[in-house]
Amino acid sequence: MNKLKVIAFDADDTLWVNEPYFQEVEKKFCEMMEDYHPQHTISRELLKIEIANLSLYGYGVKGYILSMIEAALHISGKTLSIEAIQKILELGKEMLEKPIELLDGVEEVLQQLQGKYRLVVATKGDLLDQERKLKKSGLEKYFHHIEIMSDKQEADYQKLIRHLDIAPEEFMMIGNSLKSDVLPVLKLGGIGVHVPYHTTWAHETVEHKVEHENFYQFAHANEVLAVL
Amino acid sequence: MNKLKVIAFDADDTLWVNEPYFQEVEKKFCEMMEDYHPQHTISRELLKIEIANLSLYGYGVKGYILSMIEAALHISGKTLSIEAIQKILELGKEMLEKPIELLDGVEEVLQQLQGKYRLVVATKGDLLDQERKLKKSGLEKYFHHIEIMSDKQEADYQKLIRHLDIAPEEFMMIGNSLKSDVLPVLKLGGIGVHVPYHTTWAHETVEHKVEHENFYQFAHANEVLAVL
Repeated sequence: MNKLKVIAFDADDTLWVNEPYFQEVEKKFCEMMEDYHPQHTISRELLKIEIANLSLYGYGVKGYILSMIEAALHISGKTLSIEAIQKILELGKEMLEKPIELLDGVEEVLQQLQGKYRLVVATKGDLLDQERKLKKSGLEKYFHHIEIMSDKQEADYQKLIRHLDIAPEEFMMIGNSLKSDVLPVLKLGGIGVHVPYHTTWAHETVEHKVEHENFYQFAHANEVLAVL
Repeated sequence: MNKLKVIAFDADDTLWVNEPYFQEVEKKFCEMMEDYHPQHTISRELLKIEIANLSLYGYGVKGYILSMIEAALHISGKTLSIEAIQKILELGKEMLEKPIELLDGVEEVLQQLQGKYRLVVATKGDLLDQERKLKKSGLEKYFHHIEIMSDKQEADYQKLIRHLDIAPEEFMMIGNSLKSDVLPVLKLGGIGVHVPYHTTWAHETVEHKVEHENFYQFAHANEVLAVL
């Protein structure tokens, strides 16, 4: 731990609330499409299309809106009203304009770590959207810069660590997803800190009991201060 | 010039062909909407909506598709067929799957500069899409990393240069857009190299005669070798 140079924070559901906004929009989408199928069927179809499109669209709101439109066409057998398309575009714009709600302990941990380590944001999603959220959050001043990653697998972290010009053991990642923020970093020899959030996107959930000397789990991000 | 450490290359229409693909899709879109208005009116309406959405969607294919859908709804007064929406989604996916066509002189200049300077790609657009294009292009091996910028104004370059931990006079930017690749870099004290491409997006054109000691203009990227 005394080699540590860079601490990277995931953004969505680690620094601020995100997944509940996606779920809220998904609920509205399912209600809108209820004439065609029960809500849980709509929800499953949407997830299927989202995942099929991930390799082409990547993560983030814009790809999500495009997948919703595609799902709407598919589910309705193209009998949907054109107003429904308009409505989906509006839901998307609303998502992009949501206010930022910081999670507990986040500002404190950043205040304490600032100046001692190089702090970065490492997140998937749309660059512009994440930059806007960082600006709105008031947290921008704590970070050296923001890293948008097209995915968070081992190879992506390898690239990130090389780009930061550090060794894996000088790198700590803090985030709410075991699959994306913790496991690949542990595998590379970095330090992984899991701060679970109460709700996780179905595509991010893993059944996994982690036992590793470089693994930590805390209820709030500021509890990491105890081990630094 | 002897202080130079980092050379950044714009991607679209600097390393490879891009704008003609957007224009091709726009042409198909205008033909599709011809029942409502003449093609030049459609084109103007689309550009208006694209620019209005830039601050929310940013640059790149996904935002472009969403703007096309919005334009289609607006132009048709929501009388459009749902098949047309399907068609637009397909046009978008085709764009994301286009093959890569390198521009003349690009591979040569990268081969020559490799190892002598830190080479980066500095581009607007969708991260995943640009990463995919870089991989497909076969040029990935020449670059230290890829920087996706949400915009290319002076403040964005300031952030980039700080992030690269260099001084402005150690930075050269090579690109096809005077407005985005050259002028802001010159203003900061960096070196700006303009390699014009035969066609430029209307939003990127500037009427500007550049006279500056750190400004160069070449027909092909490899001609920069003469001054390095």
